[in-house]
Amino acid sequence: MNLEIVQQKAAQAKGILAELDVDLWLVFVRETTASSDPVLPLIYGADLTWQSALIFTRQGGRVAIVGRFEVETARRVGVFKEVIQYDQSIRGPLLDLLNRLAPKRIAVNYSVDDVYADGLGHGLYKVLSDYLAGSPFAERLESAGPIIRRLRGRKTGSELARLRAAIATTSEIYAKTLEHIRPGMKEADIARFMHAELEARGLSCSWDREHCPTVNAGPDSPIGHVGPTDIALQSGHILHLDFGVRQDDYCSDIQRVVYLARPGEAESPEPVRRGFETVCKAIDAAVSAMRPGVTGEEVDAAARGIVTGAGYPEYLYATGHQMGRECHDGGGILGPRWERYGETPGWPLEAGQVYTVEPGLMVPGYGYIGIEEDVVVTESGAEFLGAPQRELWIKRAE
Amino acid sequence: MNLEIVQQKAAQAKGILAELDVDLWLVFVRETTASSDPVLPLIYGADLTWQSALIFTRQGGRVAIVGRFEVETARRVGVFKEVIQYDQSIRGPLLDLLNRLAPKRIAVNYSVDDVYADGLGHGLYKVLSDYLAGSPFAERLESAGPIIRRLRGRKTGSELARLRAAIATTSEIYAKTLEHIRPGMKEADIARFMHAELEARGLSCSWDREHCPTVNAGPDSPIGHVGPTDIALQSGHILHLDFGVRQDDYCSDIQRVVYLARPGEAESPEPVRRGFETVCKAIDAAVSAMRPGVTGEEVDAAARGIVTGAGYPEYLYATGHQMGRECHDGGGILGPRWERYGETPGWPLEAGQVYTVEPGLMVPGYGYIGIEEDVVVTESGAEFLGAPQRELWIKRAE
Repeated sequence: MNLEIVQQKAAQAKGILAELDVDLWLVFVRETTASSDPVLPLIYGADLTWQSALIFTRQGGRVAIVGRFEVETARRVGVFKEVIQYDQSIRGPLLDLLNRLAPKRIAVNYSVDDVYADGLGHGLYKVLSDYLAGSPFAERLESAGPIIRRLRGRKTGSELARLRAAIATTSEIYAKTLEHIRPGMKEADIARFMHAELEARGLSCSWDREHCPTVNAGPDSPIGHVGPTDIALQSGHILHLDFGVRQDDYCSDIQRVVYLARPGEAESPEPVRRGFETVCKAIDAAVSAMRPGVTGEEVDAAARGIVTGAGYPEYLYATGHQMGRECHDGGGILGPRWERYGETPGWPLEAGQVYTVEPGLMVPGYGYIGIEEDVVVTESGAEFLGAPQRELWIKRAE
Repeated sequence: MNLEIVQQKAAQAKGILAELDVDLWLVFVRETTASSDPVLPLIYGADLTWQSALIFTRQGGRVAIVGRFEVETARRVGVFKEVIQYDQSIRGPLLDLLNRLAPKRIAVNYSVDDVYADGLGHGLYKVLSDYLAGSPFAERLESAGPIIRRLRGRKTGSELARLRAAIATTSEIYAKTLEHIRPGMKEADIARFMHAELEARGLSCSWDREHCPTVNAGPDSPIGHVGPTDIALQSGHILHLDFGVRQDDYCSDIQRVVYLARPGEAESPEPVRRGFETVCKAIDAAVSAMRPGVTGEEVDAAARGIVTGAGYPEYLYATGHQMGRECHDGGGILGPRWERYGETPGWPLEAGQVYTVEPGLMVPGYGYIGIEEDVVVTESGAEFLGAPQRELWIKRAE
């Protein structure tokens, strides 16, 4: 349990509620080891077993209603000024508290667009609705999506420090991997090497281990959520890697590309160079477009337009996603208005948000070029959180 | 990903749907690394990123609709006879499939009572409702709770073998711990010893590490979900331990008690002996009551009645819960009709279900006595999955 960050994040709630004119935020959970609400690690930092209510008000009130055996843990979190205990049912104490606070707008954790704000199961929502039935509060529930995406998105100083550290470790492992690779190695060998580097540092993958790293050697490697295969690295091909580490509960997510030169070949072939430069330009276009108030859709269009404008097919995914405690950290994305992205591409960027920027394209006969950088939105623009890949890495034959 | 068990569990679905007269079970998920549906590890064994539909019919049909990058993984699971790919929105392929199958009753993953059947977020439920709006299927959704609790509860042979193995390891670690303990050791020292035993075997805790084991040394140790403290073991006190291991994805959950004899004391004092015997009798009463068709409420009453009948206060929790991939595995419980348990105490036991049985009581001046055994329901009764504690362990002064 990281109490420092939990307390910082909980402290953000008051201002966000005021900004949104919401009176009360009700985080209603049960058996979170079985099915956790993704916001819980940010504002509580432990699990809860019985039905529990964590309540934040726009006046800065913070109250927890928890079962008898969880009172002590709730106190130790250091976030809740009042901890109310129950034995048989949470209904009575919850209604008493709502009557005392008399909120007009109550936000609960559901969202059609943001999985990180959709921690309230439909069944548990029905339980809550049943508890509130007959009270004036039953009709006052609304989505806490706007609260959670602000809370989660606006990284504190401690969170940014951890993200930078995870990114620095990733760069270090990439540098070692670049040294290590040789033609003839299989995709799976490279993944094993990178996993060993992680383990030597006591760290884990940013996303599921079977797909982190993703390794694509040459044009015949299957692109997408497929683990590294037995395809071998060959001279004249592109090696594409997608990798991230989870360090102190925060993630990185970075893609890099290497060209394996043929014997005697000093430079990469023109189609490879052109693909690489196009992706770099697309990244620069995105980062230049990023600043508070711009929508993710606008940023996506800037990067996507560079790739399609250069004559490559459009990539079939978003240009970037937010990153934080999780590699895909929810909230708004840098993406097009496709139905599966819902409203998320329309949300404005905010200072403190961290995004990946990851355009890509296929160079026929050579392989996939995808570069991914991690970027923080500042008051006036955006900054890379680590050194970006500005040159195509070339691995020369020995 | 354990494909053997995933395939066994997926195969159970057809019969369960027929039994319940449900035409189609629709598991609808998105970004499951962020917020997983607890049923997914049983029937899929991997994560899904884009909105995805896993569909089981009472005729034995099994279809997955997944995003482009997840088709290969969906095929490798070996459960789905048909894998349908989409790029921009799942709505079209989902409606096409439903029109083709024309189900009258469609179960989706929400439940007011069972957290393991409540994997569909309220927001995602709204997304689905919106996709189905205007079709005849919008009005046909119902809770998949009855499906999931049957599927999850009825352990296959492979699942039972894993549970027995986890329980055997737990007994082994308890035996070593009993040898190791000495008066003067702190609760936290004992937890460290047990964690080291786990790590030496490459295993992890059955529930969160800070509370597994729970260690209560004597009558002043806080009972409930509090981690081990600096309270030291003393002669004349009871040591109570609650511990479980997660081994090959399956859990154990066992409580044991030890009496620390005073110098020269050959037996435990009468109040301790009487408390121990009462708890054993309560366990036997529960296990004797267990067989298919009996409700959890009846089993709970049998055990609870022994404790209150002997003049001890009623324990403020359920007599037992199901156990499996998770320590608290959802479905029906052996519990009283308290509001926070919803309908779960009223559900009948079924062969193949695994329950903990864990009555407890406080012996004033000595400490807490709680024993917990893991039990499988058979066709005609119930059986312990490991050797039960039939004698109070006494640690004699040296």
